[in-house]
Amino acid sequence: MPLDEHALAVKLQAIGWIRHDAEDVPRHWSVSELEGDLEIRPEFAAGLVDIAAGQKIIVIFAFDQSPPFTEDLLKQETRYSKEIKGVFSICSPKRPNPIGLSVLEVLAVAGRRLRVRALDMFDGTPVLDIKPAFKNE
Amino acid sequence: MPLDEHALAVKLQAIGWIRHDAEDVPRHWSVSELEGDLEIRPEFAAGLVDIAAGQKIIVIFAFDQSPPFTEDLLKQETRYSKEIKGVFSICSPKRPNPIGLSVLEVLAVAGRRLRVRALDMFDGTPVLDIKPAFKNE
Repeated sequence: MPLDEHALAVKLQAIGWIRHDAEDVPRHWSVSELEGDLEIRPEFAAGLVDIAAGQKIIVIFAFDQSPPFTEDLLKQETRYSKEIKGVFSICSPKRPNPIGLSVLEVLAVAGRRLRVRALDMFDGTPVLDIKPAFKNE
Repeated sequence: MPLDEHALAVKLQAIGWIRHDAEDVPRHWSVSELEGDLEIRPEFAAGLVDIAAGQKIIVIFAFDQSPPFTEDLLKQETRYSKEIKGVFSICSPKRPNPIGLSVLEVLAVAGRRLRVRALDMFDGTPVLDIKPAFKNE
């Protein structure tokens, strides 16, 4: 993969981190019931002001434990159904850009910690963004 | 904003670009009817194999025309309703990490060009990822 030719000048920073106690790799957010916290950095806490318990949020995060993307990963076997599918039709953490997305339910807001359900990232995963969840169908 | 302390080593690359002819800034994807193309780089075309007309996709892209994020942007006036809201509750392009998300409808697939509807990005916007759309409610 020619990584540099179309490299973007965008620099990413963690706005916070995923915190939970589970040891196993969590399942996909659409079936996960894992609870934990989003710990947001103090510098960004003011941006949380309109987030409330009961709503759903889209969390964008970095797959910081994924290997570099290589051409053989353009098609991958899915984790459960064992089908071979194009990377843009599955939620694999091995992607051209290591960015993940999960839709989480907010259970409680305590300052700059959001208690959430449906986690499917490793503990310590860097959070990049939180966006409001819209119905998409 | 202390940009470097929690900077991530992740490097982003364009997997393709948004193409359309509209001159005005498009409205949010949930109300946009703008049609155009996702032009995916040849190196990544094989990853499109399971995307078909009629489905919805999540497109992750770079807000490459946004200014650097500053503390005063933690709360912003919304574009239409003119409310002051936390950045993590709105879809403003001025975000701590300049990453956008739109849910688009695939109208047709022609090789490495996806014809799509509901665009709300500028022409030429770098595409970072495509993910399958799940119902989130």
